[in-house]
Amino acid sequence: MEPEQYLGIDVGGTNVKMGIVDAKTGKISNFYSHDTTSWRESGHFVDRFGDAIALQLYGNKEVKKVGIGLPGMINRDRTTPLEITAIPELDGVPLVATLSKRFPGIQFFLENDANAAALGEFYFAQEKINENYIFITLGTGVGGAAIINRKVFLGGDGNAMEPGHIPSRNGRVLERNIGKKELLDLANVRRAEFKGSTTLPTDGSISTTGLVAAAAEGDELAMNIWEEVGEMLGDGLVSLVRILDIKLILIGGGLSASYDYILPAVQKQLNYWLTPYYLKDLDLKRATLGNDAGLLGAASLCFE
Amino acid sequence: MEPEQYLGIDVGGTNVKMGIVDAKTGKISNFYSHDTTSWRESGHFVDRFGDAIALQLYGNKEVKKVGIGLPGMINRDRTTPLEITAIPELDGVPLVATLSKRFPGIQFFLENDANAAALGEFYFAQEKINENYIFITLGTGVGGAAIINRKVFLGGDGNAMEPGHIPSRNGRVLERNIGKKELLDLANVRRAEFKGSTTLPTDGSISTTGLVAAAAEGDELAMNIWEEVGEMLGDGLVSLVRILDIKLILIGGGLSASYDYILPAVQKQLNYWLTPYYLKDLDLKRATLGNDAGLLGAASLCFE
Repeated sequence: MEPEQYLGIDVGGTNVKMGIVDAKTGKISNFYSHDTTSWRESGHFVDRFGDAIALQLYGNKEVKKVGIGLPGMINRDRTTPLEITAIPELDGVPLVATLSKRFPGIQFFLENDANAAALGEFYFAQEKINENYIFITLGTGVGGAAIINRKVFLGGDGNAMEPGHIPSRNGRVLERNIGKKELLDLANVRRAEFKGSTTLPTDGSISTTGLVAAAAEGDELAMNIWEEVGEMLGDGLVSLVRILDIKLILIGGGLSASYDYILPAVQKQLNYWLTPYYLKDLDLKRATLGNDAGLLGAASLCFE
Repeated sequence: MEPEQYLGIDVGGTNVKMGIVDAKTGKISNFYSHDTTSWRESGHFVDRFGDAIALQLYGNKEVKKVGIGLPGMINRDRTTPLEITAIPELDGVPLVATLSKRFPGIQFFLENDANAAALGEFYFAQEKINENYIFITLGTGVGGAAIINRKVFLGGDGNAMEPGHIPSRNGRVLERNIGKKELLDLANVRRAEFKGSTTLPTDGSISTTGLVAAAAEGDELAMNIWEEVGEMLGDGLVSLVRILDIKLILIGGGLSASYDYILPAVQKQLNYWLTPYYLKDLDLKRATLGNDAGLLGAASLCFE
């Protein structure tokens, strides 16, 4: 018997990416990307989206399951997008019913894209991981998901895990302290205050790659800034661990390049707040799927 | 057909309480309480505990399900107590297997007592409530549970929901700020600082009932203290709501007598941090089962 093949679709505000994913190896073939705007402007987003799916399915008859990751909120039974800010055309569309009608015999699975990316780590990471974990993405915002018993944790009403919006320092939520823009604002403030020697520019042009590079070269100020970010992230993770009783934490997203420089402070906060029950099994890792996380995550929805 | 009858057992460090609970009305009959210490000192806790169950079952042949609430940690599949600080004799005992062997044909359900008390509110509260809610107990500590789809939320490893241990103000976890002892310490500090008119004593003898009574009479300082407590509780609740996506919050426990005086500040914090998606459905209520919460909660484990 051939290994199973799934169609994974990562719907984004800029592009819709899809590809056939080998369930066993995570190898992606027949990769296809289309810009989101032109489908939106056609006034028939769902039809054009369906046409692209049709091309994939007709060319790959062995595919019977399609996983779709969407950038926003979905109803609790995962059939209908509720609030997709980037593609409001989808709000309220019974997408699973619509696609199932057009493609008889094909199963469709819908999920929020951060949740899908999190689940992808279970099925497609090189190294096998525990079936319970917290997944945090660091980028413009601080997103997240929890996988419990290999399943996306939905919470009460289907939209659990908004770690970027828990209270943090200075009367702000976490992502208003350590989101990309906010951590650069912080860096520029700290640069202005700093009296020591540093390679960071004073003209407000500090970038996140610059901050990572400077820290890699041992720059004291850059390391201090990542430490401050790590402390705030660590405090937030403590709340997640205490509420969810999960001890494996994966860190992904564009800013996870800073992983090595925030880790000591994150670990310091975890050690400060948590008890041996948690600490003896606690494990932090970088997420591994990188640029393929969206597509592989979508395909991982097809696993039972 | 007779309405179903369950045996509910609330195992505490001081007393083991049990009674036959009518599944429909929550009426408790055949109430029996035994001190925990004498069973522990007999060296045969599980046997004596089993004898008491035997007496109930022999006298009530219609009972086929027994729910047991335990004050501590239980393994993930809810068969074996792991860490019952008040009754360490139970640690590691395969309690469900042992009792099932002694009482063929009877089903046993084990749960942490706070989780059981939370579930009891769903099945036995006068007013029907949503099947998703957060349950918080205010007392010596700050405990909690979450009910999702009418089931106790276990988290990753079975011991989810430690809201008393999430980071709060002043480098302390929440219950080290608003647990009974800590809030009285806070009250005495605020009393010493206070220049206005108040009925609260200056000799360090402020009690929680005194604080509630003074607030009820409009005492400014007492109201300020409850406001400060409510703010810290409110910030903690925001984290729970954002992580769990649950909008109904029940407040119980010995200190919930302060409910009316902490509520405005709790609500203020929720309004400050949360978005309309949450706020439009958010609902705070006092838990209703009071002294019977332990026993009714244990019995509620038998539903399903």
